[in-house]
Amino acid sequence: MNLMDKVNKFRDDRDWRQFHNEKDLSLSIALEAAELLEIFQWKTAEEGVKNIEAIKDELADVLIYSLMLASNLNLDVEEIIDAKIAKNNSKYPVEKSKGNKEKYTEL
Amino acid sequence: MNLMDKVNKFRDDRDWRQFHNEKDLSLSIALEAAELLEIFQWKTAEEGVKNIEAIKDELADVLIYSLMLASNLNLDVEEIIDAKIAKNNSKYPVEKSKGNKEKYTEL
Amino acid sequence: MNLMDKVNKFRDDRDWRQFHNEKDLSLSIALEAAELLEIFQWKTAEEGVKNIEAIKDELADVLIYSLMLASNLNLDVEEIIDAKIAKNNSKYPVEKSKGNKEKYTEL
Amino acid sequence: MNLMDKVNKFRDDRDWRQFHNEKDLSLSIALEAAELLEIFQWKTAEEGVKNIEAIKDELADVLIYSLMLASNLNLDVEEIIDAKIAKNNSKYPVEKSKGNKEKYTEL
Repeated sequence: MNLMDKVNKFRDDRDWRQFHNEKDLSLSIALEAAELLEIFQWKTAEEGVKNIEAIKDELADVLIYSLMLASNLNLDVEEIIDAKIAKNNSKYPVEKSKGNKEKYTEL
Repeated sequence: MNLMDKVNKFRDDRDWRQFHNEKDLSLSIALEAAELLEIFQWKTAEEGVKNIEAIKDELADVLIYSLMLASNLNLDVEEIIDAKIAKNNSKYPVEKSKGNKEKYTEL
Repeated sequence: MNLMDKVNKFRDDRDWRQFHNEKDLSLSIALEAAELLEIFQWKTAEEGVKNIEAIKDELADVLIYSLMLASNLNLDVEEIIDAKIAKNNSKYPVEKSKGNKEKYTEL
Repeated sequence: MNLMDKVNKFRDDRDWRQFHNEKDLSLSIALEAAELLEIFQWKTAEEGVKNIEAIKDELADVLIYSLMLASNLNLDVEEIIDAKIAKNNSKYPVEKSKGNKEKYTEL
């Protein structure tokens, strides 16, 4: 069973799709992203990554809600990532953006 | 080339991994999640999903940064999602949580 | 004692200002805002506001960290709000934006 | 005119209170907090604070939406901050938490 099927099985077993409108799913992605970020509050990156088990859990939650939102909208995750990378490739030509933090942070 | 390889190729072509500490990557996931959520600001879910092209772009950005963070930490995305679904399966037994919004929102 | 003084007394009594760099304070405002938003997850506004005690706590946390950030940067809260309202007044002339959700959501 | 009155005058002049349910106001606080945080993306605190004009604008937006939410719910901002500081005072006794980052990050 692929990832999307596993995520869908989890929520369909519980009949939860009825609560999962796209606004609350997007809100939930933002909340899980905040829980991931909280691991780094008042810490350096080096200190934060020591809490690797918490990072795994929260990053997985971000991904699970993202897959649920994609499923609601019949989006192919691989396809939208491919398309976005293609856009970014034109936006940030390698020759101009290579190793360039200034350019990068001006996005 | 799989998704993770594509995402890594994009950033390694630009030599950007040096800027990508895990705290700022987590922060970036949160920022992209906010941009996704903004599509639904002052709107119902039904109104928001009409802007499907913006949703594709912002959801892809959430996923791309999530893959980058996973890559930084040598995490297998499929593995962490599997593990989290297993945890959620024990936390929300089907018989207790089926169609049950009350239970669900008490998380 | 005014609000800003109370907030500063709280943190200076604990000698916490040393940890309170502006990046982590901004991050903390975002985390508290997420906790406020969580009160409305899977709920309508009407359902969410029943949890008024939680809203008071989380909104206060957003404000407390905002005052701390303002204090770090010697910003006068009243002054920056005044200046932003003045900007918004030019951006949204009353005659064009009155009762106009379309215009409003195009921000 | 006090701050709350100014904020209310701004939105009532535009008849926007009808769109301002408490779920979308909380969502808006989170979005403005993300815009504030974005100023520090890929940057140290020291680098970020150089962009002081952007910080003023985004922090003001966080505060304006916070005041609007308080107004919707008839909350007295000074009162809820006082109450939260009192709670925090019992949660973090000065003798235990003074200069103590470990304790502090265990919140």
